[in-house]
Amino acid sequence: AGDIAAGKAKSAVCAACHGADGIAVIPGYPNLKGQNEQYIISSIKAYKDKQRNGGLAVVMQAQAAMLSDSDIANLAAYYSSLK
Amino acid sequence: AGDIAAGKAKSAVCAACHGADGIAVIPGYPNLKGQNEQYIISSIKAYKDKQRNGGLAVVMQAQAAMLSDSDIANLAAYYSSLK
Repeated sequence: AGDIAAGKAKSAVCAACHGADGIAVIPGYPNLKGQNEQYIISSIKAYKDKQRNGGLAVVMQAQAAMLSDSDIANLAAYYSSLK
Repeated sequence: AGDIAAGKAKSAVCAACHGADGIAVIPGYPNLKGQNEQYIISSIKAYKDKQRNGGLAVVMQAQAAMLSDSDIANLAAYYSSLK
């Protein structure tokens, strides 16, 4: 399982769109607060693998390309832990 | 904007995976409770247009194919309204 503290540290970039508390700053982006850990992992990997396309998916493809499997697991642990 | 009551009525099928209260029944599926309305709309449309692929996306592609634009707007209004 991911490391919540490492995920929090890594989340600074994510916060620009998804909010410091996991509540998105604009309604076109998803809230991540309390989202299921496993779903967050599979979603980020789907962007990284370019299985998610269209609309703003290109933004997340670019972000996900910079994340290792370990980064992804840590971010998922962090966002799913937010209440 | 969508009709919350109509969305709730339409959500019976969604509840099988996403939960009656918008909290997913298994961790591989996303919670929808309180998710941003606009994001829900763009996500369902991305599945309908087969812009989201891989993993379990085929499940949502099939479900989304049965939804009209009006159904999608109503479902988004309903799930985003859940607190």
